[in-house]
Amino acid sequence: MTENSPTPEDQSAEKPVERDEDDYLPRPELLQQIDQAIEAEDAQKLNELLAPMHAADIADIIENLDPGERRVFVTLYGGEIDGEILSEIDEGIRDQIVEMLPRDVLAEAVREMDSDDVVDLIEDMDEPEREEILSALDAGDRAAVQQSLAYPEHSAGRLMQSEVVTAPEHWTVGETLDFLRNEEWLPEQFYHVVLVDPRRHPIGYVTLGRLLAAKRATPLKELEEDSFRTISAYADEGDVAYIFNQYHLISAPVVDRDDRLVGVITIDDAMAVLDEEHEEDILRLAGVGDESSLTDTVGQTLKQRVPWLGTNILTALAAASVIALFEDAIQGLVALAVLMPIVASMGGNAGTQTLTVAVRGLATKDLTSGNSLRVIRREAAVGLLNGILFGAVIGAVTFFWFGNPLLGIVILLAMVINLLVAALGGILVPLTLNRLGIDPALASGTFVTTLTDIVGFFAFLGLATLVLL
Amino acid sequence: MTENSPTPEDQSAEKPVERDEDDYLPRPELLQQIDQAIEAEDAQKLNELLAPMHAADIADIIENLDPGERRVFVTLYGGEIDGEILSEIDEGIRDQIVEMLPRDVLAEAVREMDSDDVVDLIEDMDEPEREEILSALDAGDRAAVQQSLAYPEHSAGRLMQSEVVTAPEHWTVGETLDFLRNEEWLPEQFYHVVLVDPRRHPIGYVTLGRLLAAKRATPLKELEEDSFRTISAYADEGDVAYIFNQYHLISAPVVDRDDRLVGVITIDDAMAVLDEEHEEDILRLAGVGDESSLTDTVGQTLKQRVPWLGTNILTALAAASVIALFEDAIQGLVALAVLMPIVASMGGNAGTQTLTVAVRGLATKDLTSGNSLRVIRREAAVGLLNGILFGAVIGAVTFFWFGNPLLGIVILLAMVINLLVAALGGILVPLTLNRLGIDPALASGTFVTTLTDIVGFFAFLGLATLVLL
Repeated sequence: MTENSPTPEDQSAEKPVERDEDDYLPRPELLQQIDQAIEAEDAQKLNELLAPMHAADIADIIENLDPGERRVFVTLYGGEIDGEILSEIDEGIRDQIVEMLPRDVLAEAVREMDSDDVVDLIEDMDEPEREEILSALDAGDRAAVQQSLAYPEHSAGRLMQSEVVTAPEHWTVGETLDFLRNEEWLPEQFYHVVLVDPRRHPIGYVTLGRLLAAKRATPLKELEEDSFRTISAYADEGDVAYIFNQYHLISAPVVDRDDRLVGVITIDDAMAVLDEEHEEDILRLAGVGDESSLTDTVGQTLKQRVPWLGTNILTALAAASVIALFEDAIQGLVALAVLMPIVASMGGNAGTQTLTVAVRGLATKDLTSGNSLRVIRREAAVGLLNGILFGAVIGAVTFFWFGNPLLGIVILLAMVINLLVAALGGILVPLTLNRLGIDPALASGTFVTTLTDIVGFFAFLGLATLVLL
Repeated sequence: MTENSPTPEDQSAEKPVERDEDDYLPRPELLQQIDQAIEAEDAQKLNELLAPMHAADIADIIENLDPGERRVFVTLYGGEIDGEILSEIDEGIRDQIVEMLPRDVLAEAVREMDSDDVVDLIEDMDEPEREEILSALDAGDRAAVQQSLAYPEHSAGRLMQSEVVTAPEHWTVGETLDFLRNEEWLPEQFYHVVLVDPRRHPIGYVTLGRLLAAKRATPLKELEEDSFRTISAYADEGDVAYIFNQYHLISAPVVDRDDRLVGVITIDDAMAVLDEEHEEDILRLAGVGDESSLTDTVGQTLKQRVPWLGTNILTALAAASVIALFEDAIQGLVALAVLMPIVASMGGNAGTQTLTVAVRGLATKDLTSGNSLRVIRREAAVGLLNGILFGAVIGAVTFFWFGNPLLGIVILLAMVINLLVAALGGILVPLTLNRLGIDPALASGTFVTTLTDIVGFFAFLGLATLVLL
């Protein structure tokens, strides 16, 4: 019965969107009871509480425990930790759990996992641990995992499942249905049947919906989808996420260098990659290690943040030594010391605006060699206009504050120079880093704020020296 | 044939991931030819070039044109712009295109679109334009769109498709297959059959894969998935994206306040929302309007960026007036002016680190009332330790640079104070804004950097006045 449903209560358009956490997050009371059960080391109670919960929520609970509690948790509940829970846990914490788990429980958990999840689990492990887990798998699964591991890190080959449902291109719907009904083993989730030629080259696919709706005698070839595209096993996982999002794919066959089918990637994996890449970008832009997690300890957090702050102290010292060049000017006119951070701060902010737009544009592949010149021109124009606008504002404030019209003109000019430099730096630095193969999200921020600090201080204090002293 | 595939070339693990843009982006030569065809106003050539392209790529091309070129493009190619292309174009530009399109082409395009895409197209339109488009739809589609519009903006009700494939809970696989095969109209993409009771309450669902693999006599109830959950039509779209990502859903039935089925949301829509929400977060954190796009004009870009820079100039002036309090101290010891930006800058960077982690934690629902106290404690500890570490570094540098041990101790203390304040501000400000119902990504940045500027200058210059003068 495909039909449209009755209209909702008419007044509802005015009501705000509901944000009732209870609907989809485990209730705080439940979390508290779980904490208590762990504290009391009450295995039975813990089992009762966790039994109805989704593996993803159990994984979140494990992530939120202290390292000590986590050990108790594994003692109490370890036997129940299955492949699904294991695949949901954050990498760093998962490694801890894996070490704590009894070997037989781990082997059992791994046997339940899809090949892509096993790959995700073991790809960062040392050889002996990896071997131990591989040996728990049956021969077919082991081969699939090893095949996947042979592809580069962060490639489509690592992301794919080897289990694909295929059909010869000449089959009819009826033949396909009979085959599926008699097949002992099918992947847990699949959305297409991939048509292959005799050399196992994928040549099209049919959605299950079409298969269900068609007559038995219909040849599969007549039901093929337009959206069909294959992905190289060597493609970068970020590009895979882009392709899924751009072309609204649900699943896509993965091929090797000879265009032979080696696996399939489904949209849920692409969504997870998209999520991770965004997370990485946002954390890198802020100078936070891209593996950072709320459950990290103080030590882990320090390790992630010190490098960025260390870089920043060097650049701050560079800016300070620019100021030191003008000690005499400041001595002569202390107002310079009062005003100079304004010029630097506005430059930093304007630069970050342009930079963020540029980094996002590169990440979403909207900023290309075809339009970069136009974007550079636009940013330069915006920087110049913002410089004139805010330079005039701060020039007027300076005039009224310090009663010094020349000082007002100096800060106006310095602002125009610095916001123009900020705009050009904000777009050119990420474009250059990107061309050099460096992730612009990682390094652009330091470059651009160093630039705007140094140029801001130099332009303001230098002009002041020329004009006022 | 479900099977594992042959292993790839063994040397491949060492090769870097491929980043060959040609694989999935339209070639630059092609884009150039398209530009030339538009310039030459050659409709036939343009049609030839665009014919094999995906709607999403054509939409990208339209977005990248200048407003003038866009008008020419619509004149040349307008008749071919269909519902698919229209749904892919960015909102701002789509509105321009819709205005330019001949009314009959628009009506035809809208008739082809899924109800959720029509909702997306018209939800921000004025009443007369909206009516015009609604009148192009047939009665059933119009009712579906109007029903969806009755739900709040950014709700699941706006995101869903009304077209759902349902089956009575007592049906067998055979009955369902016969029904599907005889149904004239099925949604273009569907992944589950939703089981409903006689009052149209969804009570479970069956994946198409299971339906295909089962015997005809099997009751649907036996094939139900564990992952089944319904979504309230009033739920926030961000929460919908979270639920899909957390529980690996592919599609989920949407229900009204009486738990009656009103539509279905599929993972591709959830993925698009996730993408938009990330984009919003990252742009808001940088103080760039969250609707900003690379194709915006200079005027549009200025309009988005001026408010943030305007806020920043006020906070920079506040910081400057703190410095002005200490003019005498600076006059007495110019080294203070040289060193003070270092304290402020380190505070701003450390604050931004904490802030970004907090904003992300709130967005991903990892930062909850249950663990916020622990995260606050961790951030405070990290802030304190970073303050001591970098305070010691800069204290030593100051001692050697200016030969003034007391000044070194002053800057050490100021750094400890400011990095501790930065850490506390970085976590408490977003938590507070979130509790007040304000998007922490939008406003936290200004609060935190203002705080670290003011505290940085005040602590350093104030301590210097106390200790040195």
